[in-house]
Order: sequence, then structure tokens, then C-alpha cells
Amino acid sequence: MINKGKLFVISGPSGAGKSTVIARLLKRLDNTYFSISATTREPRRGERNDIDYHFVSREKFESMIANDELLEWAEYVGNYYGTPAAPVDEKLNAGYDVILDIETKGAAEVMKKRPEAIGIFLFPGSFEILEQRLRARGTDSEEKVLKRLDQARRECEKVDMYQYVIINDRVETAADEAVAIMTAEKCRTAERKHYFV
Amino acid sequence: MINKGKLFVISGPSGAGKSTVIARLLKRLDNTYFSISATTREPRRGERNDIDYHFVSREKFESMIANDELLEWAEYVGNYYGTPAAPVDEKLNAGYDVILDIETKGAAEVMKKRPEAIGIFLFPGSFEILEQRLRARGTDSEEKVLKRLDQARRECEKVDMYQYVIINDRVETAADEAVAIMTAEKCRTAERKHYFV
Repeated sequence: MINKGKLFVISGPSGAGKSTVIARLLKRLDNTYFSISATTREPRRGERNDIDYHFVSREKFESMIANDELLEWAEYVGNYYGTPAAPVDEKLNAGYDVILDIETKGAAEVMKKRPEAIGIFLFPGSFEILEQRLRARGTDSEEKVLKRLDQARRECEKVDMYQYVIINDRVETAADEAVAIMTAEKCRTAERKHYFV
Repeated sequence: MINKGKLFVISGPSGAGKSTVIARLLKRLDNTYFSISATTREPRRGERNDIDYHFVSREKFESMIANDELLEWAEYVGNYYGTPAAPVDEKLNAGYDVILDIETKGAAEVMKKRPEAIGIFLFPGSFEILEQRLRARGTDSEEKVLKRLDQARRECEKVDMYQYVIINDRVETAADEAVAIMTAEKCRTAERKHYFV
């Protein structure tokens, strides 16, 4: 008997280190699938279709919206971004756990559609640390850093929507916590009732 | 700021391997306290007071019952066994996680008094494996083995009372799962609200 996989939604402000933690997670856990977003924006240099994104036309994306084929979607600087439901459900039904990396608004949409989803919020530990990290990148203007911080504060106000918070002050500890959460969720009594027969 | 510790109640049928898993757990986790039961039975050879049990008189135990100083208690073959509340609360308030190893009836009592307690049920994976283990011990008569199996079946009927089930088919995996559950429970959003200030 194969149990269905579990759906995990990971959010966190820009600079929280989501991609690094998720990369470690995927290395350590078997049967885990990282969802690929669909977008209408042009591929950047080095980006591969169906690996980094599903690059689709505006018409295609709009038909996906019309047919309710997306778990969540948003328009950002003139381009659509969204999570196609079909590959997620396919993987879940095959027993894979699925990870979505989405911002708080998309997360809220997913959790409404899939109330069984497990929400995990990644945070660097304090807004001071977040600010240091954003400045240390050296890529953003002062204005952009302040805008990102403001955005982060607004995202953090939604933290109660998530069941778990991971503090990413050390990436190793954060990955340990993420693995622990995903392992623990597989130990839920409802997941293991079939042993008692 | 010190968060209060969390209370974990671990149950499982005789032969599930609770003591082995708990011993591994205690080696791997800091700030974790294993609760010591009080009993009126005579110490056995090698048993040390306040380490293996709090050995107390019948009068003392009955006054603890009367004063509601026990989280749970039971009488078994003429002796009292129970969990004194004071040392548990002391450790929880000091930020330690506390583990209770108790059978399902005591666990139900604790969870009624402390609804925030996290219940973990340990199971060998199947009743066949349990039977093999009980027979492999070679210490019990056929009658006693059957009695223990019957008891195990009745305990397993209470599994929905527990949030988590650990399958102890390999002690390493079982200890990993126990550590994961305890780690994940420390990542609950409510435990980490103080980071977002």
C-alpha cells in the first residue's frame, strides 16, 4: 500500500535563504519532489524549460487560469507566475512529498484549496540579520533594500498561517529542522493506521 | 527569554522497545528530562532511589493522591505507581522537554490534565513482529505471551489518542523519528513568535 505524499508549502522573505535550505532538503530526502512554476516571462540565460520553469505563452497561462488548473498564480511586473496543479497531484498520488516554494499570498491560496498542506515559514532569526544579509549581497540599491525589508515585515505578519517556523541562522540547523518537520509529518497517526490491522 | 519545555508522552505495548528508543533519544537530545515514577513497591536488586524510581511508602503515595500531586497513577499487583507532577513542572518551567513513559490509561489521564502534551505511540510494525519479539525473549510462559499480546491489541486500539506513531522495526530509524518529532514540535509557530519582534 502506498500512502499519498504530503504537500509542504515553504515561504519566507527574500534573504531568508529558502533556495539553499530547499536544496539541502532535496539532497537528504528521498521521494520528494520540488514543484516547478509556470511563467510567461522570457527564459533568462541558462534557464532550462521544464527544469527551472515551465515557460508558457500568455494564452496558455490564461487558459490555465480559466480552467482552474493552477493551485495559485500572480502577475508580477507584467508576467504571470503560478503553480500547475496536475504535476503536484500526480506526484502526491504516486507517494511523493511535494514542496512548493511560494510567497505568502500564493501560500494562502494553496492552503485554502488544500487545507491538508503543511506550511513552513523560513526566517533568518531577526529583521536585523535579514537587513545585514540583504546589504551583504551588494546587488540592491538602498531603496530596494528598504523595500525588501518592508515587504519582509508584511510577509512575517502572516506567520500564523504556517504550522512551523524554521530559523535559518545556520543553514545546517535549518536543513535539520526542515528534515525533522517533514519526517515528523510522515509519523502522524493518520498516516500509519494501516500498520494496526 | 526561555520558552517553556514541551511534555511528551510515550506509550507502546510491552515488546515495542520503548526503553531502548528512549535511551537513544536522551543521548541525542539536550535539555531533555526523563520523568521518574513514584512507586510503593520494594526496590529490586540494583535499583536506586530517585534514579530508577522514587520509592515511597503507601502513606506517602496515598497523601500524594489525596493532594492531587500526581499526573497519573495506577495500582498494579498490590503496589502503586504514578507520575509526580512537581518535578515535571519544574523541568518544563526551566525550559526542559520532559518525556513520560506510561501505558495508555495513564497517558489518557495526563493528556486530560495537560492537553498540550504530545503523544507518541511506539509499535513494532505488526502484531506478528510483536509476537516474535515476545517469544524471542524466552522469559515468558505461553500463557503470559498470549496475555501480553491481548494487552497489546487493547493498547493499540487507543492509538488515535496519540499524535504520532513510531514504527520500531529498526531502533536507529525509530530513534531518528523520535528525534524528528521532538525537533519538529520545537519548530511550531507558537514556540517561535518571539523572533518576529
